[in-house]
Amino acid sequence: MSVVHVLNGPNLNLLGHREPAVYGDETLADVEMRCRRLAAGLGLGLDFRQSNEEGELVTWLQECGADVASGRSVGAVLNAGACTHTSVALRDAVVGAEVPTIEVHLSNVHAREAFRHHSFISPVARGVVVGLGVVGYELAIRALQHYAEERA
Amino acid sequence: MSVVHVLNGPNLNLLGHREPAVYGDETLADVEMRCRRLAAGLGLGLDFRQSNEEGELVTWLQECGADVASGRSVGAVLNAGACTHTSVALRDAVVGAEVPTIEVHLSNVHAREAFRHHSFISPVARGVVVGLGVVGYELAIRALQHYAEERA
Amino acid sequence: MSVVHVLNGPNLNLLGHREPAVYGDETLADVEMRCRRLAAGLGLGLDFRQSNEEGELVTWLQECGADVASGRSVGAVLNAGACTHTSVALRDAVVGAEVPTIEVHLSNVHAREAFRHHSFISPVARGVVVGLGVVGYELAIRALQHYAEERA
Amino acid sequence: MSVVHVLNGPNLNLLGHREPAVYGDETLADVEMRCRRLAAGLGLGLDFRQSNEEGELVTWLQECGADVASGRSVGAVLNAGACTHTSVALRDAVVGAEVPTIEVHLSNVHAREAFRHHSFISPVARGVVVGLGVVGYELAIRALQHYAEERA
Amino acid sequence: MSVVHVLNGPNLNLLGHREPAVYGDETLADVEMRCRRLAAGLGLGLDFRQSNEEGELVTWLQECGADVASGRSVGAVLNAGACTHTSVALRDAVVGAEVPTIEVHLSNVHAREAFRHHSFISPVARGVVVGLGVVGYELAIRALQHYAEERA
Amino acid sequence: MSVVHVLNGPNLNLLGHREPAVYGDETLADVEMRCRRLAAGLGLGLDFRQSNEEGELVTWLQECGADVASGRSVGAVLNAGACTHTSVALRDAVVGAEVPTIEVHLSNVHAREAFRHHSFISPVARGVVVGLGVVGYELAIRALQHYAEERA
Amino acid sequence: MSVVHVLNGPNLNLLGHREPAVYGDETLADVEMRCRRLAAGLGLGLDFRQSNEEGELVTWLQECGADVASGRSVGAVLNAGACTHTSVALRDAVVGAEVPTIEVHLSNVHAREAFRHHSFISPVARGVVVGLGVVGYELAIRALQHYAEERA
Amino acid sequence: MSVVHVLNGPNLNLLGHREPAVYGDETLADVEMRCRRLAAGLGLGLDFRQSNEEGELVTWLQECGADVASGRSVGAVLNAGACTHTSVALRDAVVGAEVPTIEVHLSNVHAREAFRHHSFISPVARGVVVGLGVVGYELAIRALQHYAEERA
Amino acid sequence: MSVVHVLNGPNLNLLGHREPAVYGDETLADVEMRCRRLAAGLGLGLDFRQSNEEGELVTWLQECGADVASGRSVGAVLNAGACTHTSVALRDAVVGAEVPTIEVHLSNVHAREAFRHHSFISPVARGVVVGLGVVGYELAIRALQHYAEERA
Amino acid sequence: MSVVHVLNGPNLNLLGHREPAVYGDETLADVEMRCRRLAAGLGLGLDFRQSNEEGELVTWLQECGADVASGRSVGAVLNAGACTHTSVALRDAVVGAEVPTIEVHLSNVHAREAFRHHSFISPVARGVVVGLGVVGYELAIRALQHYAEERA
Amino acid sequence: MSVVHVLNGPNLNLLGHREPAVYGDETLADVEMRCRRLAAGLGLGLDFRQSNEEGELVTWLQECGADVASGRSVGAVLNAGACTHTSVALRDAVVGAEVPTIEVHLSNVHAREAFRHHSFISPVARGVVVGLGVVGYELAIRALQHYAEERA
Amino acid sequence: MSVVHVLNGPNLNLLGHREPAVYGDETLADVEMRCRRLAAGLGLGLDFRQSNEEGELVTWLQECGADVASGRSVGAVLNAGACTHTSVALRDAVVGAEVPTIEVHLSNVHAREAFRHHSFISPVARGVVVGLGVVGYELAIRALQHYAEERA
Repeated sequence: MSVVHVLNGPNLNLLGHREPAVYGDETLADVEMRCRRLAAGLGLGLDFRQSNEEGELVTWLQECGADVASGRSVGAVLNAGACTHTSVALRDAVVGAEVPTIEVHLSNVHAREAFRHHSFISPVARGVVVGLGVVGYELAIRALQHYAEERA
Repeated sequence: MSVVHVLNGPNLNLLGHREPAVYGDETLADVEMRCRRLAAGLGLGLDFRQSNEEGELVTWLQECGADVASGRSVGAVLNAGACTHTSVALRDAVVGAEVPTIEVHLSNVHAREAFRHHSFISPVARGVVVGLGVVGYELAIRALQHYAEERA
Repeated sequence: MSVVHVLNGPNLNLLGHREPAVYGDETLADVEMRCRRLAAGLGLGLDFRQSNEEGELVTWLQECGADVASGRSVGAVLNAGACTHTSVALRDAVVGAEVPTIEVHLSNVHAREAFRHHSFISPVARGVVVGLGVVGYELAIRALQHYAEERA
Repeated sequence: MSVVHVLNGPNLNLLGHREPAVYGDETLADVEMRCRRLAAGLGLGLDFRQSNEEGELVTWLQECGADVASGRSVGAVLNAGACTHTSVALRDAVVGAEVPTIEVHLSNVHAREAFRHHSFISPVARGVVVGLGVVGYELAIRALQHYAEERA
Repeated sequence: MSVVHVLNGPNLNLLGHREPAVYGDETLADVEMRCRRLAAGLGLGLDFRQSNEEGELVTWLQECGADVASGRSVGAVLNAGACTHTSVALRDAVVGAEVPTIEVHLSNVHAREAFRHHSFISPVARGVVVGLGVVGYELAIRALQHYAEERA
Repeated sequence: MSVVHVLNGPNLNLLGHREPAVYGDETLADVEMRCRRLAAGLGLGLDFRQSNEEGELVTWLQECGADVASGRSVGAVLNAGACTHTSVALRDAVVGAEVPTIEVHLSNVHAREAFRHHSFISPVARGVVVGLGVVGYELAIRALQHYAEERA
Repeated sequence: MSVVHVLNGPNLNLLGHREPAVYGDETLADVEMRCRRLAAGLGLGLDFRQSNEEGELVTWLQECGADVASGRSVGAVLNAGACTHTSVALRDAVVGAEVPTIEVHLSNVHAREAFRHHSFISPVARGVVVGLGVVGYELAIRALQHYAEERA
Repeated sequence: MSVVHVLNGPNLNLLGHREPAVYGDETLADVEMRCRRLAAGLGLGLDFRQSNEEGELVTWLQECGADVASGRSVGAVLNAGACTHTSVALRDAVVGAEVPTIEVHLSNVHAREAFRHHSFISPVARGVVVGLGVVGYELAIRALQHYAEERA
Repeated sequence: MSVVHVLNGPNLNLLGHREPAVYGDETLADVEMRCRRLAAGLGLGLDFRQSNEEGELVTWLQECGADVASGRSVGAVLNAGACTHTSVALRDAVVGAEVPTIEVHLSNVHAREAFRHHSFISPVARGVVVGLGVVGYELAIRALQHYAEERA
Repeated sequence: MSVVHVLNGPNLNLLGHREPAVYGDETLADVEMRCRRLAAGLGLGLDFRQSNEEGELVTWLQECGADVASGRSVGAVLNAGACTHTSVALRDAVVGAEVPTIEVHLSNVHAREAFRHHSFISPVARGVVVGLGVVGYELAIRALQHYAEERA
Repeated sequence: MSVVHVLNGPNLNLLGHREPAVYGDETLADVEMRCRRLAAGLGLGLDFRQSNEEGELVTWLQECGADVASGRSVGAVLNAGACTHTSVALRDAVVGAEVPTIEVHLSNVHAREAFRHHSFISPVARGVVVGLGVVGYELAIRALQHYAEERA
Repeated sequence: MSVVHVLNGPNLNLLGHREPAVYGDETLADVEMRCRRLAAGLGLGLDFRQSNEEGELVTWLQECGADVASGRSVGAVLNAGACTHTSVALRDAVVGAEVPTIEVHLSNVHAREAFRHHSFISPVARGVVVGLGVVGYELAIRALQHYAEERA
């Protein structure tokens, strides 16, 4: 059984506890549970991780890419948090490790500070889902499954 | 029965015939059919339109807003095409007519020319779905249904 | 009897119904009535129009210019709405059709989003009145009457 | 009897004598007379001043704010001249002293050098009247009277 | 017999009547007549249109593209007027409808305001002819004929 | 006994009366009293001034520099208010008169409008204290005393 | 007994050994000792840390926020070093974990390279102390103690 | 018999041998022959030159200007190559020597690197022909002949 | 006997005492003496002033303009110091009061901070002399005398 | 025996496996072997490392600096990968730890995306070698050896 | 006897014949004669040259530098014409050959096109004289003589 | 025997005599000798040139390209000096004449003025070597030899 990787960046471990007006009141564990349920329904396992370290996210993307190459993963749902706007390394990992990636943001980044309007990841992602809360994760998982079937 | 509005901007009537490398080979009629099928499954009617005229799109958004206010619509899936990047009037219509709006783009605009990276609509949309092809329309319809249920 | 043209751009038909905190609670019909009353007091007829289409506004400005040339109009009060910030065509119509134009905005555009701070029309208008609500329309009508008398 | 403050910035004392093509041939004394006549007709006194010093204008705005607070003034018509484009202190005085302010410019600043297109005052003014010559002062006085009545 | 499309944008219907110092004193009807005469000499029909509406120009370009595809047109001479500088939709129509396009401007746009120096159409046009007055239309017709013969 | 100069720029005389949400509710007299008390505790006199005039602040900085040169002052705590962002003359006075200067702002200027993020004074000041309210003045006095002792 | 967190970013472990002209000759251990002495005098414990890893600093800020929420910390003195200018993740941690934060820099960053003039942290900090050397740490500790007492 | 000057800048001597995808496969000698044939048909001689030196092109434009003044030349077709984007001296020569100039580029410079989008020459040229290959030279010669007849 | 006005801006009263490496070691009194001697040699009186206040400089320029109009002055040598880079009011005074002005700077402003490279005064001055120290004042006096003779 | 440090940043562990068109088909192990062979020939040991974590690279540079200070290293060949463009911390480490550094990039970064054209490291490196593939590493090692001998 | 070099750039050979409104009606020969007369009066020879080639100007500056080093020249008056705004090579020659240089412009470049406001030469020149016509050359020669005497 | 071309731009003939702090004290003849020795060791002849004229460098690159095409040259080491930052013509010559080019700079251009940070040549060069002094020339020769062997 293939898995779908869901990789979360800095501060997403605070989800649900802080700034609920911006990010909603579901915790990251809630998000994981909803993703797991959906993935299971699609016949997929779930590899759900969070890190505050850019370097660890890079490594996880590389691992995901290796898994995709060997058919063990359908790709990555990537909510890189603050790293979205600052990390060339994540972009290079997506490209270098050939990870089919859907970029997801819980909040509508385009309605926030100007520095959140630019993403280093968007141009190399398959698609981007912004502002739809946890639903965005679910949509992204469906899309990765869809692309994996296309490739198969 | 409520409808979901799906509004398409300039040149989307060319879909499927031209630039299939960028936009895929499904025609706009194909997109409409897939949207109609999904909407029906969700218990929604579909009001699917396309115009090359910014002003007509503004008027349609206003009509959609009136329908939302009276419970006859769940909101608009808006692929404004080229107007995305140039039209303040569409943005003002979304805000002024209080239209719950999901912005959709078939292609990954962030991987194309720089002038396609900015959208006047994104900051006032509920969410944005980019680069997922026709699947993006379907995801957006689901999301609007979801928000309508939340409001109900 | 000469008329004064009052031309309104996209979304001004929503006036009074939406965003009253920004635009006040008078409808466009209220504005028209107040303008008509003032114009009558000044011995002027009123040609009051609204369109969501940039192209229609261009055509109306051309018609207004022809009426000014033949002495049937004193000029245009132009609230181009969103087109203010995006339309070179309206600017060219003001210049090309030689329309004495007072640009009017109900709200204080300089206190809003940065893209509303620039107007393509201001440099070719006779004057600009910003942020004074419906009173701005009345002041503009007075000013056009004043300039028409100067020319006479 | 309340007064209306009319505050004029650097070089406006040259009015009428120099650059009549840009500023008209009325002197500042003429402007004052016309303002006084209008104010009297509206039941207002007139406090009309000019200074070449930014700091003096700041102090006058503070005095005006105190007068407004105590009901002795309806606010300020402010033609800050060159300070419009360079003075944060004037902006802060308008806000800090809570002065209802209408910004006025005799000439159409938007048709002149680029550095005249930006005003530090506009975003904190109630309204802005540009390019209408002395008529602009009169319109601004009427508008301040109007707002004072609304507050009463 | 193939036709050549000549499409004119906003305010070009004012040609000859206004701003002769910039645009010359020939009317658009004069331009049409000269184009028709030249086209006839080249064995081409002429489809000469003008619109103030961006959306109508988009639709005409799409029609032209269909005619080119079926061999009924050699392409479009496009003087988009003000839309040149603001319309992504026209650019997308040129590309999406695969219209061989020569962009033409009567005046030397590079010697005018800065916002006229950028064209959204130039990068997707076959060529650009600027500042040569009506002669530019004639040169563009010749060039399209030339390319059509190359394709044949 | 040496003094410490505390120099306040435009509109700081409004302190406590206006915009308490931004600036707190202590008046400038309160600030002076707290500074005087602290200075006395450190064995320093206090020379506390406020002006709405940039030129007067320049002159005061020059006087302070002369006092520092002769050992009668430990330097200046400078809250230049709006002049912070616009005055090259103040910067030149700090450098030209060799005034040990600590720049202070009551509010967090970095959380306000973009034009408040740049200070002409910061690069030539010994240090900068921002957003700590009146406490910032006290810290700055301590620091100047500290540097004076180092020089001694 | 509450603690105050003092968090130091990349390369601050080099303090005292390198570039003494810029950063002084006290080592980070010296700074810690002085902070500990002052904190003790204020009845506070000290949690003093340094890391070269942005991710570790994010995690420490989250821990500090949890401690503040439970009354075990008065907040963080944050000298993020180079991360100041590049890290959105640190900014998000300050906001997301609700950490009362005083940003401190030993050197006067405004007198150095342009890229050091912008801080992602300043707009979300309570205050900023720049260029005062180790004294800046002490002032920041005092300020945090002051705010904690205000909250109590 | 008058001549038409055709002046070619750096690297145009490589024409036909290199980058045929961009510049076509005709050599500069081919271009000269086609120009000569057309000029002869119009009753004009041809003065066709190429230089890799900006300074030599300046001198040639000055010579051309002298010839125009004495009726020996109808003006210059100028393809300045790379100097188009970098040479103020060429622009000054066009203006200073009063050379009627048509700027020509073989390729569509607007579809290439950003630094090729700006021309120092365009604003002072009579017209500009871009992207039409060698045909552009011919059109430019016709246009210069046309203007010379107008002047005669 | 006509005079020449020599007007000096903020901080020039510090001349000779401070920053001799930048400004030389002559005092402003020395400069005045050298100017007086030269002026006398040219049969001119000298009106030499310095102010730290922009507003006073504006007033002096207006007075100078009146003297020029009545033949009592040949114009102004203006070293506006820091105001050079920030004052629109001085520029407007030069234009509005029709003062023949030579702008002078002792130091080479182009070799200093970027904000000193732009002058609001240069575009409206007759000429500019930069970096030649006190000699620059003398050259400027000669030039004004020269222009006055031309006018006579 | 001294060593030379060769430090590799994020994603360089993917070398040889991915994007061979950009980076070549040698693996990082191949690069290490070639470096080791060359270093041995020069009488140097090799300390060859790779990390996806910016913080680890900072620490390694600090260690390298300590080794250089004690004569155990000749300096660092630094291919910081994506961190080149985003990391101020690495720059500060090079300066703060006084590491003689040659920056190396396998690909020609100037021929790639705009954000790869700027390096925070270049201005503080001894030299930069770009686009020469693995040969660049070898050249850099030679250069460091050369500088070490100069210092010796 | 020392000489003074006067070096003139592209198009200055047109002086007097063209654009007299901008550059006056004296020819370059007139300028040379006036310079020669003044130089003779100061006991200096004159080496007066003009070239349309940037490279020749570079070489002449190098020769001048050699002459200065050997005491045969007092330095260069440099009116580089258009090269002023585009040539780094001239700047490098001034610095590299250690030429005492006074930059001169006949017209007021600051009142002309924006690209003429920047000079690559100004920051490395001893001084700059702008807008004073031929008088500027004379002033520059005097200044160079003055500096040569200072060095002697 | 093949040669390697080494082409040097403006002011490099001054090498060794001036600014030794920046460029070292070896003359260009020294550089040539070292290059000749290395080339000989690699079995290559050396064609070493210097010019102050951009146009001559363009021509030399074209000649080099012809030699490369016929196997008589391995390519060019290009130190274009100041032209690096201003010359599009050199870039076009590298591309148009298909010259394998290694760009070399003696000094670290990235540590100098901002205008030296951009090179028109880098994006079309095979590689770039910066800041390594004369060693950079030697490395570049080795690299060209290496690529020539690859092609063989």
